[in-house]
Amino acid sequence: VTAPTGVWLVGGRGSVAVTTITGAAALRAGLTAPTGCVSATEPFVSLPLPPVQSLVFGGHDITQSDLPKRAEKLADGGVLPPGLPGLVRDELLAADAEIRPAEGKDIDALTADLVSFRERHGLARVVVINVASTEPRYRPDPAHASWESLRRHRESLPDSSRYACAALLAGCPYVDFTPSTGIRLPGLDELARARGLPYAGSDGKTGETLVKSVLAPMFTRRALRVRSWSGTNLLGGGDGANLADPARAAAKAGSKARVLGDVLADPVEESVHIQHVADLGEWKTAWDHVTFEGFLGARMTLQFTWQGCDSALAAPLVLDLARFMAFAHQVGARGPVPELAFFFKDPIGSTEHSLERQYAELVRWAVEAA
Amino acid sequence: VTAPTGVWLVGGRGSVAVTTITGAAALRAGLTAPTGCVSATEPFVSLPLPPVQSLVFGGHDITQSDLPKRAEKLADGGVLPPGLPGLVRDELLAADAEIRPAEGKDIDALTADLVSFRERHGLARVVVINVASTEPRYRPDPAHASWESLRRHRESLPDSSRYACAALLAGCPYVDFTPSTGIRLPGLDELARARGLPYAGSDGKTGETLVKSVLAPMFTRRALRVRSWSGTNLLGGGDGANLADPARAAAKAGSKARVLGDVLADPVEESVHIQHVADLGEWKTAWDHVTFEGFLGARMTLQFTWQGCDSALAAPLVLDLARFMAFAHQVGARGPVPELAFFFKDPIGSTEHSLERQYAELVRWAVEAA
Amino acid sequence: VTAPTGVWLVGGRGSVAVTTITGAAALRAGLTAPTGCVSATEPFVSLPLPPVQSLVFGGHDITQSDLPKRAEKLADGGVLPPGLPGLVRDELLAADAEIRPAEGKDIDALTADLVSFRERHGLARVVVINVASTEPRYRPDPAHASWESLRRHRESLPDSSRYACAALLAGCPYVDFTPSTGIRLPGLDELARARGLPYAGSDGKTGETLVKSVLAPMFTRRALRVRSWSGTNLLGGGDGANLADPARAAAKAGSKARVLGDVLADPVEESVHIQHVADLGEWKTAWDHVTFEGFLGARMTLQFTWQGCDSALAAPLVLDLARFMAFAHQVGARGPVPELAFFFKDPIGSTEHSLERQYAELVRWAVEAA
Amino acid sequence: VTAPTGVWLVGGRGSVAVTTITGAAALRAGLTAPTGCVSATEPFVSLPLPPVQSLVFGGHDITQSDLPKRAEKLADGGVLPPGLPGLVRDELLAADAEIRPAEGKDIDALTADLVSFRERHGLARVVVINVASTEPRYRPDPAHASWESLRRHRESLPDSSRYACAALLAGCPYVDFTPSTGIRLPGLDELARARGLPYAGSDGKTGETLVKSVLAPMFTRRALRVRSWSGTNLLGGGDGANLADPARAAAKAGSKARVLGDVLADPVEESVHIQHVADLGEWKTAWDHVTFEGFLGARMTLQFTWQGCDSALAAPLVLDLARFMAFAHQVGARGPVPELAFFFKDPIGSTEHSLERQYAELVRWAVEAA
Repeated sequence: VTAPTGVWLVGGRGSVAVTTITGAAALRAGLTAPTGCVSATEPFVSLPLPPVQSLVFGGHDITQSDLPKRAEKLADGGVLPPGLPGLVRDELLAADAEIRPAEGKDIDALTADLVSFRERHGLARVVVINVASTEPRYRPDPAHASWESLRRHRESLPDSSRYACAALLAGCPYVDFTPSTGIRLPGLDELARARGLPYAGSDGKTGETLVKSVLAPMFTRRALRVRSWSGTNLLGGGDGANLADPARAAAKAGSKARVLGDVLADPVEESVHIQHVADLGEWKTAWDHVTFEGFLGARMTLQFTWQGCDSALAAPLVLDLARFMAFAHQVGARGPVPELAFFFKDPIGSTEHSLERQYAELVRWAVEAA
Repeated sequence: VTAPTGVWLVGGRGSVAVTTITGAAALRAGLTAPTGCVSATEPFVSLPLPPVQSLVFGGHDITQSDLPKRAEKLADGGVLPPGLPGLVRDELLAADAEIRPAEGKDIDALTADLVSFRERHGLARVVVINVASTEPRYRPDPAHASWESLRRHRESLPDSSRYACAALLAGCPYVDFTPSTGIRLPGLDELARARGLPYAGSDGKTGETLVKSVLAPMFTRRALRVRSWSGTNLLGGGDGANLADPARAAAKAGSKARVLGDVLADPVEESVHIQHVADLGEWKTAWDHVTFEGFLGARMTLQFTWQGCDSALAAPLVLDLARFMAFAHQVGARGPVPELAFFFKDPIGSTEHSLERQYAELVRWAVEAA
Repeated sequence: VTAPTGVWLVGGRGSVAVTTITGAAALRAGLTAPTGCVSATEPFVSLPLPPVQSLVFGGHDITQSDLPKRAEKLADGGVLPPGLPGLVRDELLAADAEIRPAEGKDIDALTADLVSFRERHGLARVVVINVASTEPRYRPDPAHASWESLRRHRESLPDSSRYACAALLAGCPYVDFTPSTGIRLPGLDELARARGLPYAGSDGKTGETLVKSVLAPMFTRRALRVRSWSGTNLLGGGDGANLADPARAAAKAGSKARVLGDVLADPVEESVHIQHVADLGEWKTAWDHVTFEGFLGARMTLQFTWQGCDSALAAPLVLDLARFMAFAHQVGARGPVPELAFFFKDPIGSTEHSLERQYAELVRWAVEAA
Repeated sequence: VTAPTGVWLVGGRGSVAVTTITGAAALRAGLTAPTGCVSATEPFVSLPLPPVQSLVFGGHDITQSDLPKRAEKLADGGVLPPGLPGLVRDELLAADAEIRPAEGKDIDALTADLVSFRERHGLARVVVINVASTEPRYRPDPAHASWESLRRHRESLPDSSRYACAALLAGCPYVDFTPSTGIRLPGLDELARARGLPYAGSDGKTGETLVKSVLAPMFTRRALRVRSWSGTNLLGGGDGANLADPARAAAKAGSKARVLGDVLADPVEESVHIQHVADLGEWKTAWDHVTFEGFLGARMTLQFTWQGCDSALAAPLVLDLARFMAFAHQVGARGPVPELAFFFKDPIGSTEHSLERQYAELVRWAVEAA
């Protein structure tokens, strides 16, 4: 019998984390199908990824609200089916007991929390995944350019990078599901390689950018020339309130804007606007307006409207990433895992943004590594 | 010096044909870039496809309107740049002189027109492409089940199949750019194989279905469950008026509905509605509404609106197909060429509907065959 | 103390009826605000309309499903707030007990049900409102051209007209909330006038047509010329399934198409398409695409997408109509009440389709009559 | 014979001005119908407004490009019919000769230009209309709070107010077709009243806000509660480039946001985003997303997409305003004319934002005054 796998969620009391934990419990109890879980489809279902059933959840958070209450609120908001939080209350309480306060802790204390979690549960490994709120955009700091220097200045790191650093020091693979700085610093990359740890990121590709990552290659494939691509994102709830801060919105918009530059042949007039609309609750609506040029200069337009629930879109990808990263660690990957680009808006170590080619790459890697 | 290649357009005075001929002349004269021409991009641009410069146009039609006048009308409607028809008037007149009346001709007479065209211009080969109006849906007829039987009943064929039959009898590769029956009869397939002729079809993938062919695989790749997909097509001009006839609309809608069944894992509630809106002229607007289910049953929606000019979208693909089919003939392909599925809503000989995989297949085939 | 007012719902177990009854109970219990109830706003709130608190519900239906169960289903579908059906269970049971089977009854039996309801509850009057499924379009029959003739052929009437006839024979005001024939027969109009009974209809203006009734006047006010107006309606649930029948859809589409002809100065290319999409449940989505011409022939486009819940939109209007019709009866109106055009897609006795002018007319009438 | 009326356009070489002048010439020559001209419809067509035929155009501008060239560019961009600029070249040249450079002129020099224009052409009056680029938002300055003080500080005024001041000093009625400060200063209002001059503004209601001004009252009329209204405006060309400056965009967005506050019963979460998309040329696309609440708290959504040509929408309103303001001056109106609210996003002197009620007010005023 193999040891279970730990999943440590930074932002463990947030909507994405609670949906992930509730969903994993529902899958374990056979209460739902794994809709949205890529790792539950062929060919991955036949590979030796750690089963969802074996995942043990813990995390860090700066708030205190208990998980069953948070899950009830998500059910009221239509994210979780009514009644489900009650059915998996035991699992929610178990995870709740493993979420440690993060406020005021230095990196050593964060590391100790991770080590303690792994040891108390006898876990084969713990995958740390950052699903906390987006931070303002980071300004490059020469102090973080090498591990030697970064180590001495480690308490000056942005929060997301402090968690990443703690993960690596605890020997844990790390995933950035947000556009925050996290592990994207030369000093941390150096550390990960030195410790033989894989990592991946950043910014889970859940909605508007997912659609862009298939539509942009469509234009390229057909030699149609995209002229402008204007996106508007109306975001409710916590994510939207957080992104009402222009500095954080800029970080997010920057991440969203990676796709077109890499996929399209010609430069395009691009904009990404993020607007907080509290009334949308846990939901978001994105409207994208694309102008393009066809044969003999004919001007045409494509618009799309995406109405999605970010937590419901993110949670199965978090489960996928926990499983794929545990697998990557097991098979000895170290440093960035570019084959996981499929999951991210702004993939570390890859400039491939076409969803279909990213998928092919994921399959190839997973099958070969297995 | 290699001999030029003929392109014989069934429906040679229609909007698609006139845009194709005008565009080829504009490309030859260096007046425009090959936007929308897939064969003008890498890796195809490096392969020995017959150059656009070498194409010679002819065709069949049942109307008499002359090409320069038709081109002027398309310029008024915004399909062609104002002024362009005047600049390529000589080429339009040359093509005009090679468009033969089709009214009342038997298959032998149609065949003779093709042979005469090839011989008078010393063409290496003639690719016949059907860009005429969509016919009502065909009812299978046992008389057409073998070449032997079909030959005896050939004058009972639907018009599109009569053109296909003439093409094969004249030794020409054949392309169905419409959803009409055309070459999709066992007797004609038998004839094509016997004569060593390649063919492809059907129904050029120019707009709504093009978008579907990337969005549907996106849902599959992400294990999201599509529940309903409702499409509404507002079509102006000749195409729309023709499709105002419910029997013809049914043929078109049938062709459009192929994508989802083959791409999606689960059955989906699908509808395709076609509406003639004369005021749209040469333009069309499609609105698609998709409902899908994510993790834990969360219900989400994607809508898109496509505002395109069908002739401008079709014409570069017609040039592509002329070049790829001439190439296929040259390298000895016979029967259906499934590797051309990339270009069609309802590809003959292929059940692959994902645009990106179709593209990979096209590249593989063309590079290997070259 | 004035006697209570009865509301008799034809189709009393359908979604609209159940939402109406549940909502009235919630209002009575102070559990909700009267959102969507026009009669609860100024100036109507100051007029002597019968209070919602005094309404007593009954009805006819051909199905047996009990109201609390139907209400639970509506709560599951997101139409009613979860928990509400349980809170008003007593009122639902009370109404349930007053819903009579309609199957196989002749007009006299239907009439007797109404009279019995009024007498048993000591009601001041009973307003009969048809909220049953839409019937196929009616073909005019000379037998229904006068009351004398219609009386002799009354069992040949369409169902909706049989209910209307029964209402009048029982001395009840009548409202057609559907596009079915109902009271729109010369013989029934004659009867209503003879008995001194007011009536109104038809087809409650709840969604797409509501929007049309403000957008179409906007174009007229600005002297902009509408060229085409294409509407697509995706309907889930019972209403959609019923309208999947082309004959019923035609009746509905006809009713929806009244607005433009009366409001716009010039003829317009109009279409209304109705599509059943079971997955939408109790919800509907309408997409309208409008092309219009401005100064110097400039062509422009307006599109809108309406995502609504028909029962939630209809129910407060049913309460409004019950109150306004009781009021009309009380103040002695007889025959059609054109001042209620505000509520209908295809108002009987009025060619006014501008919502704002209809509203002004409603206010004027109600204030003067009070 | 009455004397002709002058129309002095501030920004006389801009797109709106050129479309206005070209259109007036086309109307005079019988080359087009007055589509979009409200004053050309009943009942106004029967009132003694100065005929379009009698209008004489002049203006101020800071650029030198000549009008025929500007008109040709608008024809290339699809705003004017191809060929029209050539047909009205004489009128364009005549207006061109009356457009004076504004650069570096003090208010007295601007005034002198107006007086000279009126005298040289023997005009009954000159209506000054500001159609220049939007200025950054103005910060209230106590120096402008009275005419006495403002006069002494007049060269510190924003440009738009300098033109307004010159208009009043020259005895001309004034219209603000932009959201710039213009005449909206207590000192200028005082001057207008003292000189017996009418004025109106501000910000012509041409697109998104026009639609809002009918949709917002629709919700109110139906007692539906709007929860959020998020607008995104993609603007091409000169207007968009100008509004790419956040300070100017803020001025515009402020003006656009007036409607909801005055029309809706409850506070609403509103946002207006303006994005420059150069590729759109003279066109704009607005997408509005509205969430609203119906009976029993049901949440619903309305979205609309407006694709319009601002110059083509504005020009007929400029002609209307020239005629109505000349009429107002003739009948002795002084100070703001609130009855012209129909034409503006942010009407001076009125809090009425419902288009239909604004229209009724316009009709009442014009008919009574005539």
